[in-house]
Amino acid sequence: MPTSRRVVLAARPDGIPQAEHFRIEAYEPADLKPGEILVRNQFLSVEPAMRGWVSAVANYAQPVGIGEVMRSFASGEVVASNHPGYAPGDRVTGMFGWQEMAVVPASAVSRKVTESDLPLSTSLGVLGLNGITAYFGLLDVGQPKPGDTVVVSTASGSVGSAVGQIAKIMGCRTVGIAGGKDKVRQCLEDFGYDAAIDYKAVNDIAAAVAKACPGGVDVYFDNTSGPISDAVLPNLAMGARVVICGTASISSWDPWPTGPRPERHLLVRRARMQGVLAFDYAHRYGEALARLAGWIRSGQLRYAEDILDGLEAAPDAIASLYRGDNRGKRLIRLHG
Amino acid sequence: MPTSRRVVLAARPDGIPQAEHFRIEAYEPADLKPGEILVRNQFLSVEPAMRGWVSAVANYAQPVGIGEVMRSFASGEVVASNHPGYAPGDRVTGMFGWQEMAVVPASAVSRKVTESDLPLSTSLGVLGLNGITAYFGLLDVGQPKPGDTVVVSTASGSVGSAVGQIAKIMGCRTVGIAGGKDKVRQCLEDFGYDAAIDYKAVNDIAAAVAKACPGGVDVYFDNTSGPISDAVLPNLAMGARVVICGTASISSWDPWPTGPRPERHLLVRRARMQGVLAFDYAHRYGEALARLAGWIRSGQLRYAEDILDGLEAAPDAIASLYRGDNRGKRLIRLHG
Repeated sequence: MPTSRRVVLAARPDGIPQAEHFRIEAYEPADLKPGEILVRNQFLSVEPAMRGWVSAVANYAQPVGIGEVMRSFASGEVVASNHPGYAPGDRVTGMFGWQEMAVVPASAVSRKVTESDLPLSTSLGVLGLNGITAYFGLLDVGQPKPGDTVVVSTASGSVGSAVGQIAKIMGCRTVGIAGGKDKVRQCLEDFGYDAAIDYKAVNDIAAAVAKACPGGVDVYFDNTSGPISDAVLPNLAMGARVVICGTASISSWDPWPTGPRPERHLLVRRARMQGVLAFDYAHRYGEALARLAGWIRSGQLRYAEDILDGLEAAPDAIASLYRGDNRGKRLIRLHG
Repeated sequence: MPTSRRVVLAARPDGIPQAEHFRIEAYEPADLKPGEILVRNQFLSVEPAMRGWVSAVANYAQPVGIGEVMRSFASGEVVASNHPGYAPGDRVTGMFGWQEMAVVPASAVSRKVTESDLPLSTSLGVLGLNGITAYFGLLDVGQPKPGDTVVVSTASGSVGSAVGQIAKIMGCRTVGIAGGKDKVRQCLEDFGYDAAIDYKAVNDIAAAVAKACPGGVDVYFDNTSGPISDAVLPNLAMGARVVICGTASISSWDPWPTGPRPERHLLVRRARMQGVLAFDYAHRYGEALARLAGWIRSGQLRYAEDILDGLEAAPDAIASLYRGDNRGKRLIRLHG
């Protein structure tokens, strides 16, 4: 095996992981044991959830250990296989870590990437968990009907931009909420929102939502919690659905943050709030991917990528994401 | 027409309406116009919502005017009719007001009471909006499955007691939350809850809920909002449903009260919170009433009534309700 390189966690961050919390090291990929495959990674994913994966605070999963390769979704090509289901040349996506060459059990593979006409990078974004989250969060939990007004927070993000466009495909009117002129422009020009609100530029977000949604908000797809949600909830239409997908604006849940009580809004509007996690829909990923790929091919679903080159870009990539530097799904490309 | 008596609003209360805000006066019922009926009321209803009906603050409906008869559900017998759908002797329930004799348009009638084997008083409680609210709130919004743990706040109240018993009928385990030994005893002995928590007697309501619900809370039927809800939400089971039926513990929504944010609970548990209002189910009242009446006849659904005698009891009856004096659906009986 040739010597390869990987990014390991060097120190546990207290907050957002910075470049100094990681270290790039050379390593010799181990020989394949039965059931394992060797993947040459072409794209590594960078996402907000990684902050939780290296945090000492309990989350959905055990934290990455000090000295261990950084946990990550990645996509690449099988170069050797000791598993009957995979052969060299297969394009795969899964939990392969921030490394050039990954020796992993076949169970680390999320799926074979069969959309050979579409860039492999999409398997980490619009044809990955971002798109799947948007699809099920909007359609299953949000249940939009033609003519509904759908409001999306982090509207130009990897999930939000897909939500807005799927809502348009479903015949809805879409209103995006994003921070800054650039993102608002992206919402309107790239992702086809009917209206977009720059929450950093308005004095009264609730008034801006009311103005943009004169008939009320039928579906609110929320990635933020916090002040943006507090501004949308008083504007719900009768029977509205609020999809709770993320809580990006809450920096810590200890101590637990407070906010205006939602109960009266839910009661007066007979509305509902409901959490969504893509993993719950694993048995229906195929359906989602087929439809998402179809919409990409027909030009109805656009996506933005923000690709950094080389493993050297990885250590700072999460911090950069939290600085808001990216303008699309943040990826790291290997083998240029 | 004989002279009759009614209770009118004498002054607009600032908060909970007291006896001095009402006045009993004699009046001469008017002659029936086309489409009107004359009802001799036998039972007048008293309920928490009446506070809103006399409040200057906008609510679901216009407030009762000064000098007008107090708005109220009531049940009685038709004694004269100028409408082809009603005949003397019909038992009816509807918005007949706090008065002995009511001249009302037929549109004021909610329904003819056809359960001739059951007391007419039930048409204002367990076979009225209370039971209907419990039925649709629990079954349609809460969607309990056999084996689920169902937690009910104001568990011994007119709505809550029906919720707990319907949940038992559906094969659920039921845990009631109520204030005081008396109500807890009522929960366990009269309404068959598997466990009951006296929220006034425990230091840590959340810990008490956790202990009573080792597998988590699958359905939370909430009539309170406030600290009781804040204690239940951290104990939700995966996929839990929270039914928002009332907000009794919130004394004012101006200024809007704050509380711990629910978003993370909803996300981590993929749970939902949803408001319910019985009026939305008007097209299905028949279904609910038939099943509720069946459960009463079979002894599976018990109800408590707290009946005051005579119109003189009406003016203080709402304040008394807010003092927690009642031990069942509060009614006023006329014509002894």
